Amino acid sequence: MSKNSPSVAGTKPSLPQGTRDFGPDVVRKRQYILTTIKNVFELYGFQPLETPAMENLETLMGKYGEEGDKLIFKILNNGLNDPKNIDKAKAAFENVLQGKNDKNLTERALKYDLTIPFARYVAMNHGQLTFPFKRYQVQPVWRADRPQKGRYREFYQCDADVVGSNALINEVEFVNIYNTVFQQLGIEGYEVRLNSRKILTALAELCGGADKMLDITIAIDKLDKIGLEKVKEELTQRGLTTEQITTIETYLNVDGSNEEKLQHIKALLQQSEIGNKGIEELEYVLSMEHTQLPIIDFTLARGLNYYTGIIFEVKAPATVKIGSIGGGGRYDDLTGLFGVPNIPGAGISFGVDRIYDVMEELNLFPQTIAQGSKVLFFNLGIEEAKIGYALMQQLRKQGTAAEIYHENVKMDKQFKYAEKKNIPFAVILGSRELENKMLVVKNLQTGEQQTLKQEELLSYSF
Amino acid sequence: MSKNSPSVAGTKPSLPQGTRDFGPDVVRKRQYILTTIKNVFELYGFQPLETPAMENLETLMGKYGEEGDKLIFKILNNGLNDPKNIDKAKAAFENVLQGKNDKNLTERALKYDLTIPFARYVAMNHGQLTFPFKRYQVQPVWRADRPQKGRYREFYQCDADVVGSNALINEVEFVNIYNTVFQQLGIEGYEVRLNSRKILTALAELCGGADKMLDITIAIDKLDKIGLEKVKEELTQRGLTTEQITTIETYLNVDGSNEEKLQHIKALLQQSEIGNKGIEELEYVLSMEHTQLPIIDFTLARGLNYYTGIIFEVKAPATVKIGSIGGGGRYDDLTGLFGVPNIPGAGISFGVDRIYDVMEELNLFPQTIAQGSKVLFFNLGIEEAKIGYALMQQLRKQGTAAEIYHENVKMDKQFKYAEKKNIPFAVILGSRELENKMLVVKNLQTGEQQTLKQEELLSYSF
Repeated sequence: MSKNSPSVAGTKPSLPQGTRDFGPDVVRKRQYILTTIKNVFELYGFQPLETPAMENLETLMGKYGEEGDKLIFKILNNGLNDPKNIDKAKAAFENVLQGKNDKNLTERALKYDLTIPFARYVAMNHGQLTFPFKRYQVQPVWRADRPQKGRYREFYQCDADVVGSNALINEVEFVNIYNTVFQQLGIEGYEVRLNSRKILTALAELCGGADKMLDITIAIDKLDKIGLEKVKEELTQRGLTTEQITTIETYLNVDGSNEEKLQHIKALLQQSEIGNKGIEELEYVLSMEHTQLPIIDFTLARGLNYYTGIIFEVKAPATVKIGSIGGGGRYDDLTGLFGVPNIPGAGISFGVDRIYDVMEELNLFPQTIAQGSKVLFFNLGIEEAKIGYALMQQLRKQGTAAEIYHENVKMDKQFKYAEKKNIPFAVILGSRELENKMLVVKNLQTGEQQTLKQEELLSYSF
Repeated sequence: MSKNSPSVAGTKPSLPQGTRDFGPDVVRKRQYILTTIKNVFELYGFQPLETPAMENLETLMGKYGEEGDKLIFKILNNGLNDPKNIDKAKAAFENVLQGKNDKNLTERALKYDLTIPFARYVAMNHGQLTFPFKRYQVQPVWRADRPQKGRYREFYQCDADVVGSNALINEVEFVNIYNTVFQQLGIEGYEVRLNSRKILTALAELCGGADKMLDITIAIDKLDKIGLEKVKEELTQRGLTTEQITTIETYLNVDGSNEEKLQHIKALLQQSEIGNKGIEELEYVLSMEHTQLPIIDFTLARGLNYYTGIIFEVKAPATVKIGSIGGGGRYDDLTGLFGVPNIPGAGISFGVDRIYDVMEELNLFPQTIAQGSKVLFFNLGIEEAKIGYALMQQLRKQGTAAEIYHENVKMDKQFKYAEKKNIPFAVILGSRELENKMLVVKNLQTGEQQTLKQEELLSYSF
């Protein structure tokens, strides 16, 4: 910051569209959610990983489909006006104007999700890692999406993945991670829903061929939003026959308890080897210990086409109209894109912004989160403040968060400060108390106050 | 991630120059440092703030001097190839090739430090904030510096500032925040050094005028690195006379205890009102409670020219050749640049990467940091794993981090996994234990093992 730029004074500052400042209260609430999730990840043996905000452009491009690629924020190379760069930069700019990418203009970009950087990390370090490698990652990502309610250009993702394992025990672990987190956060009425891409594959086979898989999953994925009739319309548009659509409708109508659903689906898919495998896998997951049983939901599809096994989705309590607050699934090959094949895995993520909204709406954040300091020492003179300060240092040594008001002003103003900052106790040490080696502790909520010897402060229970 | 891009398989991935992945062990060690610092900030009544990675370009430009401006990472606008943008983009690109900035090409940039975004935040929200506003902020920043040992393009800054207060009690607080953090981290032999820009101003006056201030501070700032003779050379080059340089040399040679130094400096600067004010302020800070007394160091200058009062610097223990691990000072006007004048303040920062290096070199990280799970449940069969899993869930409910090996393989392999992941206990539940409702707990460090009833596991002290 240079003090020599008075000319720009008066510029009214603003934030880039789709980004947010998080003030103290919001940071504390977000930390409460993130710390809960991280602690549960650790409880389940997952280890933290952090990757940079910036990746090489080529690491990201081509990984998120055409639409995704357009939403990647690219970073302009520095020094473009350097004579040795200028010609290349001009040529590169022409490419960019034609909708291409060129690393002579933008060598780097901001990460778009946590999965591809994780894959890049595993591919770069697979020789040193102990497999199965269980990592969690909680970091911001950036997308040049059009901002709207609940959609930001900079937002946190919160992922856990295990790679280098085909074992279904991992799926059981993910169900229980969801259970443990949402129970610890006090969210009641959430639902962990399960399906299997193997069952969807079997359905596609039943409808005439695996080539229908993508059409079917994309259409089914919209069921919640657009309803059955529109899904059927979309299936027609995507070239499925009436007979095939009837089969899909039968599939989507499978209902009842988990057991009933599984019975129906077995009847429907009995001819399909992959279908039976999918059913067996779901049965295994259901057979294991859970604090809350997951719900089989055959209408769950998850649009992303890299899932190959069990898929997850967590629904927020029905009383809040928020929808999905988490999801994930199993994939066959994480790092093939980076030249390291045969590393299968599974992963889940938490929708942090939506969980925040659920917590707010259901009033689930503990009151104590909003509190900073426990004690405000009043400032009533130089000598008074000096003694007060030394006492405060003793309190802090015991772990009590405390502040001293910065200047000797009217008590009114100091009370006001304590109130605004939600500080529950005041320690008042004026000239009389200074003389008698006393002080007054005042509970600012009840108004009660107590005169103590100064040395008694340390045993006072705030 | 799209599964349909086999053509790029084989690309060897890499990281952008000057950026880093942090694997599990490093994240844990960094978190240990950052959590310690954050908890101390909270103990001192500071509140968390987070601002976005991206700022509007105009918020950042012109704030860091010409050299700084060049090091700002700018983000390319999306949709430049959209027909409605293309002409403006072309014109903007011409400007960029001439070394200018143009928001038709780059509307946004990555933040370069935490101070300007903080100033922007205060200017935008000053009507809602309670002053003095004490905030801390721990976030990454980005600089297009040439990468070299210990210098990165993406790195964390860790700042605390108080704004809206002229009171010196804040300086006392900052000294004690440094003390508390470094004592909690177990770093012995660090030194918190103090000087005052007011004293440097008085020295400049003594040398013939306030216009010499910048030349003098820039030269003195290099004393540590280049030594007295070179500083004198630089002062000569900067147009100071032999007589003036003699005065500066006398000043730089002031030595002894804090009291002796203050006595000498009083004699030297006795005519200067601002000098006396500076001395008085240092004396006030020294008079207050400290767990470790700060050291007066009149050779401390801190190059940044926005400081106006007391300045701080923390030196790493002399046994490690690492230099400064923290610094800060008082400034007159934080938000004037953004149209909101008269908000003075003071702040400090911690050099997180350097503190990490100090901790590594002195072997100060607690052993327990490297540990993830406490217990590995061996997987010795489907039924065995099912019972093991249920027991593990009980353990986790008590807060013990645990894992179950993902597949039923030879015990050797499972022991190896525990060893590599530094897991201290194994729970072994094979067919015999399944039958007898027993299990074996093995301490993997000592080799000791104990056979327990399954229900006794929960009271075992891991």
